[in-house]
Amino acid sequence: MTDRLPVPLDKAYRLMNHGPTVLVSARHGDAVNVMAAAWSMPLDFAPPKVAVVLDKSTLTRTMVEASGEFALMVPSRELAQLTLQVGSTSGREVDKFAAFGAGYWTGEQTGAPLLDGCLAWLECRLLPEPHIQDTYDLFLGQVVAAWADPAVFRDGHWVTTDGGPKSIHYVAGGHFFELGEAFEASAQLPEPSNNAG
Amino acid sequence: MTDRLPVPLDKAYRLMNHGPTVLVSARHGDAVNVMAAAWSMPLDFAPPKVAVVLDKSTLTRTMVEASGEFALMVPSRELAQLTLQVGSTSGREVDKFAAFGAGYWTGEQTGAPLLDGCLAWLECRLLPEPHIQDTYDLFLGQVVAAWADPAVFRDGHWVTTDGGPKSIHYVAGGHFFELGEAFEASAQLPEPSNNAG
Repeated sequence: MTDRLPVPLDKAYRLMNHGPTVLVSARHGDAVNVMAAAWSMPLDFAPPKVAVVLDKSTLTRTMVEASGEFALMVPSRELAQLTLQVGSTSGREVDKFAAFGAGYWTGEQTGAPLLDGCLAWLECRLLPEPHIQDTYDLFLGQVVAAWADPAVFRDGHWVTTDGGPKSIHYVAGGHFFELGEAFEASAQLPEPSNNAG
Repeated sequence: MTDRLPVPLDKAYRLMNHGPTVLVSARHGDAVNVMAAAWSMPLDFAPPKVAVVLDKSTLTRTMVEASGEFALMVPSRELAQLTLQVGSTSGREVDKFAAFGAGYWTGEQTGAPLLDGCLAWLECRLLPEPHIQDTYDLFLGQVVAAWADPAVFRDGHWVTTDGGPKSIHYVAGGHFFELGEAFEASAQLPEPSNNAG
């Protein structure tokens, strides 16, 4: 079983705020699937919301539309190859969890499969917006439960260490960056956000 | 003058694919402004599109709505303090470029001010979607020109070095991560994307 603790919903945005590549999973009936998505972001603090791009060809998208639920997950570098594998195969052709030997647990607020070994998991309910889903492949969700591995995120903060697990940040063609050094900056002013400017 | 080269539009998504915190700028008439946004992502490859969250309170948003144009920029760690400063002050109260001693050049395809010293710049035309702008503060744009510092991005690839400039990835409360080590992974399969899964 993967080590995990609940993350308060008002801190859930911090699991994705730094822009990691994520995995997206969904369930429909007995079927489960998982894919990779470099294109996701937080959309609001409280209640927390997220946005993610899901191409029309994906089985995951079909399941999200049918079930109204999905999960976003933050993989570590140890899962980089799996991230490529689930991102380059279709759930229409293979049972990815079985094919790649990936375990999962089922969400507590959704039926979405939550992949073992991730750094963080966000269970989401689809906020249906058919026009932008159809036009831009853009899906919005409200986060209804969030979890993190307490080795890397606890008390609302990332606690990554030099040799420890890190999120991954995909560019293209199998090329990733690992998350680097933490640092503090000060504006000598109140903290920044998307609501000042 | 900042060192910069044009980036082919079909490679522009790579400037943001790894999830950096960005700056957002806009012009309306003679007025220019810049803010910070941790919440942005690519939305399409070709033509390249982007998504960014702009709070209702921001002057930048007012300028984007009025001009139909904006720019996203990728700051380096050297600009982390400036990122906090422009993210925690309002252009309604101060001329941020003057107040923080920040230079800029004007976009070639838009009038947006492009901040000196960034790693990359994406000039965008707003794709008006009033419903999601009003409901979610979510703004979409088509990238009409892209630029990068050839010291860090050239021939369509990031070429960051150990001691060299890196993008920054904001969490909260003045806490950032710097981008870390580059690495390659292989699925022994075709390359992943948001369109397989």
